[in-house]
Amino acid sequence: MPADEPARAAVLGVDWGTTHRRAYLLDGDGACVREVVDAEGMLAAQGRFEASLATLLAALGVEASIPVLMSGMVGSAQGWVEVPYLDVAKVGLRLARLRDHLVAVPGGPRRIAIVPGVRLCRGERVDVMRGEETQLLGAALLGHADGWFVLPGTHSKWAQLRGGAIVDFATYLTGELYALLGREGTLAAAMGEGDAHDPAAFERGVGAAASGAALSNALFGVRAGVVGGAMRARDARSYLSGLLIGAEWHDLKRRCGGRWPARVTLIGEPDLAARHADAARFLGVALRGVDPRKAYLAALAALNA
Amino acid sequence: MPADEPARAAVLGVDWGTTHRRAYLLDGDGACVREVVDAEGMLAAQGRFEASLATLLAALGVEASIPVLMSGMVGSAQGWVEVPYLDVAKVGLRLARLRDHLVAVPGGPRRIAIVPGVRLCRGERVDVMRGEETQLLGAALLGHADGWFVLPGTHSKWAQLRGGAIVDFATYLTGELYALLGREGTLAAAMGEGDAHDPAAFERGVGAAASGAALSNALFGVRAGVVGGAMRARDARSYLSGLLIGAEWHDLKRRCGGRWPARVTLIGEPDLAARHADAARFLGVALRGVDPRKAYLAALAALNA
Repeated sequence: MPADEPARAAVLGVDWGTTHRRAYLLDGDGACVREVVDAEGMLAAQGRFEASLATLLAALGVEASIPVLMSGMVGSAQGWVEVPYLDVAKVGLRLARLRDHLVAVPGGPRRIAIVPGVRLCRGERVDVMRGEETQLLGAALLGHADGWFVLPGTHSKWAQLRGGAIVDFATYLTGELYALLGREGTLAAAMGEGDAHDPAAFERGVGAAASGAALSNALFGVRAGVVGGAMRARDARSYLSGLLIGAEWHDLKRRCGGRWPARVTLIGEPDLAARHADAARFLGVALRGVDPRKAYLAALAALNA
Repeated sequence: MPADEPARAAVLGVDWGTTHRRAYLLDGDGACVREVVDAEGMLAAQGRFEASLATLLAALGVEASIPVLMSGMVGSAQGWVEVPYLDVAKVGLRLARLRDHLVAVPGGPRRIAIVPGVRLCRGERVDVMRGEETQLLGAALLGHADGWFVLPGTHSKWAQLRGGAIVDFATYLTGELYALLGREGTLAAAMGEGDAHDPAAFERGVGAAASGAALSNALFGVRAGVVGGAMRARDARSYLSGLLIGAEWHDLKRRCGGRWPARVTLIGEPDLAARHADAARFLGVALRGVDPRKAYLAALAALNA
């Protein structure tokens, strides 16, 4: 960090999701000196968030008085403190504004604050995020402040930034549907178990998502393909993955007026990033990756400045 | 029945589905004299179909030598005998041809035959049905031989008939998705339990399905609507039902080149028929109902003639 900037206070950043928690300890110079990932997500910590955080601080060997900045589902109705969403208005929501809307957790002696999630209400369309706004702020701080972003996962998020402001976003139930349909029901019965990823089947799924047919029809196509002799059972999971990820991409094209954007920026872990990279290559769109850890740390430093 | 037609043999018709079995006993005049519905579906009867049928015949008090005509999943790879699909070719598949392709169950002293299911392979699109072809044959025999048909259920079928021939069809995972998403995962957690049907929320769901967004995005909208304060938790199930059924209807419009057909014919039980009637009214499409029992009996008499 440049010598002419004032020294920052040490801070603990906690990206507290539904099932997992990632904690990063920054020293007074803004350098990350410790990090922990554990399964103490919102569901596991429910009803005892304060004790759960105290255990984390003790494990890290830091003083209980250290400032803590949290983002994610910890700020939901099922979290520690319900933090109101910030709304994406017609002009968008400048991510730098997040810092002005941190909500302190009441009753504690320490400075503990939660980053607000973001809500979009546009016509009949309602969408929400908690945690991804912090990643997006970080990406913008790293110089990626415009265009379409994908943050893949259980609930995959697509967001459009313009000059560091969120102007649109949409969530897809991709990972959850993949897990549910792979575990029980008609599709699970038709698909081979624990099959290796098949790139060709994945691409066929991405291509099939372009048909414009309802996903509830395309999903039955996984079963129909297998029982109708057009698909090998061992390829069905890769095809399903392609279908669900392809639905996200073809929706992007629709949102962009029927044309592919020149580039999409992905913030995500390598395994899901690889699937999106396959889809982007197949569809002829450039995909740029941003390290989610670096994005988070950039956001944390800015929110603590 | 007209006196100049030859007397038909008595026959037992069995509509043998995945979870349920419906059996209809016709006398020599083609009149239905007994009927039984039980939970001895394909899954329950697996590995002992012959004994299961013998028990049914004994319960009905009919001779073991009576001809038996079966349709549905009993003819699948997991059924009694795997019966090859008949293909919908470019010119369609005349339903009257089903009679020429009955497959006898080998090894039995009785005349037991299975009606073949139907397969569609058109470009990348593959779809299959087993059982619905018999309902559609019956509807055609009752005078409904043209236009679009919906057979709602766990796997909802939409079929286009032209002069008594299937020319197109598509299956939707509607009922299965509704059950799965209502039982576990993010949507189940956001939705009230066992809520009464709310017609206004159902209509909003049908309307939301028109957006063209991927269903995986619209499904997350159920949760976003509730946590974002735009929907009451107790309305969410009705909205979800509208979204899934609406996706079928808006797909129909797409298949019809962006225009609603003048009329749709529904073959189904009253509960699901009522939902489709609501959707059709909201969308301004005339919906005509065909009694599935009457359709089945008409088909059975014709297949046995």
